[in-house]
Amino acid sequence: MKRTRDLALRHRAKSVLPNGMYGHQATALLPETYPQFFSRGQGAHIWDADGNKYLDLMCAYGPNLLGYADPRIDDAAIDQLRKGDTLTGPTAVMVELAELMVDMVSHADWAIFCKNGTDATTMAKTVARAQTGKRIILVADGAYHGAAPWCTPAPAGVIEEDRAFIRKYEYNNAESLAAAVADAGDDLAAIFATPFKHDAFTDQALPDVHYARHARRVCDQTGALLIVDDVRAGFRLARDCSWELIGVRPDLSTWGKSIANGHPLSALLGAEKARKAAGSIYVTGSFWFSAVPMAAAIATLQILRNSSYLEHICALGTQLREGLARAADTAGFSFRQTGPVQMPLFLFDGDPDHRLGFAWSSDMLEQGVYVHPWHNMFLCDALTRSDINRVIRAAEKAFEGLATRIDQLEPHPALRARLASAPT
Amino acid sequence: MKRTRDLALRHRAKSVLPNGMYGHQATALLPETYPQFFSRGQGAHIWDADGNKYLDLMCAYGPNLLGYADPRIDDAAIDQLRKGDTLTGPTAVMVELAELMVDMVSHADWAIFCKNGTDATTMAKTVARAQTGKRIILVADGAYHGAAPWCTPAPAGVIEEDRAFIRKYEYNNAESLAAAVADAGDDLAAIFATPFKHDAFTDQALPDVHYARHARRVCDQTGALLIVDDVRAGFRLARDCSWELIGVRPDLSTWGKSIANGHPLSALLGAEKARKAAGSIYVTGSFWFSAVPMAAAIATLQILRNSSYLEHICALGTQLREGLARAADTAGFSFRQTGPVQMPLFLFDGDPDHRLGFAWSSDMLEQGVYVHPWHNMFLCDALTRSDINRVIRAAEKAFEGLATRIDQLEPHPALRARLASAPT
Repeated sequence: MKRTRDLALRHRAKSVLPNGMYGHQATALLPETYPQFFSRGQGAHIWDADGNKYLDLMCAYGPNLLGYADPRIDDAAIDQLRKGDTLTGPTAVMVELAELMVDMVSHADWAIFCKNGTDATTMAKTVARAQTGKRIILVADGAYHGAAPWCTPAPAGVIEEDRAFIRKYEYNNAESLAAAVADAGDDLAAIFATPFKHDAFTDQALPDVHYARHARRVCDQTGALLIVDDVRAGFRLARDCSWELIGVRPDLSTWGKSIANGHPLSALLGAEKARKAAGSIYVTGSFWFSAVPMAAAIATLQILRNSSYLEHICALGTQLREGLARAADTAGFSFRQTGPVQMPLFLFDGDPDHRLGFAWSSDMLEQGVYVHPWHNMFLCDALTRSDINRVIRAAEKAFEGLATRIDQLEPHPALRARLASAPT
Repeated sequence: MKRTRDLALRHRAKSVLPNGMYGHQATALLPETYPQFFSRGQGAHIWDADGNKYLDLMCAYGPNLLGYADPRIDDAAIDQLRKGDTLTGPTAVMVELAELMVDMVSHADWAIFCKNGTDATTMAKTVARAQTGKRIILVADGAYHGAAPWCTPAPAGVIEEDRAFIRKYEYNNAESLAAAVADAGDDLAAIFATPFKHDAFTDQALPDVHYARHARRVCDQTGALLIVDDVRAGFRLARDCSWELIGVRPDLSTWGKSIANGHPLSALLGAEKARKAAGSIYVTGSFWFSAVPMAAAIATLQILRNSSYLEHICALGTQLREGLARAADTAGFSFRQTGPVQMPLFLFDGDPDHRLGFAWSSDMLEQGVYVHPWHNMFLCDALTRSDINRVIRAAEKAFEGLATRIDQLEPHPALRARLASAPT
């Protein structure tokens, strides 16, 4: 596989970007054959900087829900761009979008639009403190809620005070939550929960209903706000807040990633109860009122409402899960596929340093299928049954190949260093 | 002036957005005739939701530097959108843009791109703490550096710990800065400075060279980082960091607003010295690697380098300042125009509750010129000498009209309430 341009770009990037790349799209913790730079996206496919084509199961880490470069969405964005994007005030598009989201998301009565998922989660924390006059925010240990100092998974540059009154509990464990609530005394402002456990490097877990109901009950009793962080999973599990599936309705929910199919937009949605608090905080951003991503979001949401995208990605996810299970079984691997079928994570049993996962994923990449060895993946509506069959056939080969060289594998150096220094 | 659609949109917005609108583009503190909703932007003009057309001196609060809907920029954005925007990794465009910014901005050796100005200022704070292992961040009292809990101008939902080790000094006052530095002892991480004083509701002030050099010297002596927050003023004062004009070079600078002429992009730039610290922090965002705003930024920066936009907006700014001074003088008003001519702020003497400014601005609006009564404005390259003549003629009329009804003016109720409760 050609890598000339990717390597040249990495070399140039090294001098003008810290570490050559930062954030979740840096490939430092991926197999070394993984390309850092891409050039194109179309439907369910991406092309790297050297023109190598992949069936992409990462979907830009979530934003690509309907397909890359979908003309139904991008034409709406371009139409709006020709009229006006970032102006001296918002456009009617903002009101239409707020109405549409409030209409789709059962618990929501109002919306604040922003740019990053972190904007939405940070506002949720601030609204909860404004609402309650209390300080303690409970978050599940290991859950990702963004990369501001109060929540970034890495400690560099963060001081103790940035995380004052942020306390941990164990996801899906009602007893652990109850203990954290008891510890909070009368200072509890909010409980954060991702819609399911989608932490990196570990098995995903669907939400335990008993735990979710307990969280709701605690909030009802104390006046604290229940916040579902749907940034990553929003609209991939439901055409509503993801916890509607288990009948638990939050006070606030945070959105981003897929709501405009890749155009930069995130949102905080809230219930009537929290409207006044939301109106009391001062939050803004230079591009929070820009019309183009909102026009793209309207086009996206209309498709979500009027198409069977959700049933389609669920059916493909089931096909993928079953096919991979068979392939792994045939090759004699104990291969764990966790989380909702449309947002799968793959891990091998007996693979503490991920050397099996890395080798298998590299082989998939070599065959033109982009999978992630330790982060959940995402299916999009542009995938077809035959694409999934292609993934399964590639997996069969990758499992077979893995069996023949299992004793020659080495762990990835940067990942080994990270695992050695990890707090958990 | 027709307002039917604007009023209808406000009514709808009231139920789905907190207070009907949030953030810096809410019109709650503007004269009541100011439209909340817009429909179009072209060159130096905007149209409100009812189709009323204005010559716009706000430029979207900064982003519009070359003209709204400039096809040289938007065509580049659309070309990139058709190829790929938010993908599973960055594109070559990101490297090209980083190289271009590092090339243009003298102090910069690396770049991190993000979405909000607040992302850049928050990262600057985090990098400074990572770099120094120290905690205290000095910011000028009244300066705006964003709307995260550590810096938002409003206290709702913010707890004391959010602002721990954020200390104030008086802008342009070297003695005040020295005292704050002395207070910080050996715990000083950074000094923030806007390139000039551009606080709302008060006269702007150009930077005092003695103060700026003092800040540089303190940082050289202590190892703290000097941060110029160029989010608002970037590329409107210079084709480089704004403090190059006074010969003071920061360690970090923050950018946003105009760098992609309205497309959503911001950046933290830094010197070699801070590269390792920048590489040690974990920061990211779902759309930080998206190619479209970066392609727009490259198109914008190439125009900035190869055109006389800066000389043009400075010449127009001078024409405006002189024309308005003559008009005010003729009508007998003491009218203060402060800050750089291309980023003016207008205030009336003897107008503590801004009733004169509000009445004058309303009259300008009625004549089709959008000015702001208490926030700095922005000129853009799409303005012409004849546009500025039109502003001056409108101002002559507005001053005349104001003289005839000066005794009948009332202060704006929401603004009066705000001024009464303001901390300063």
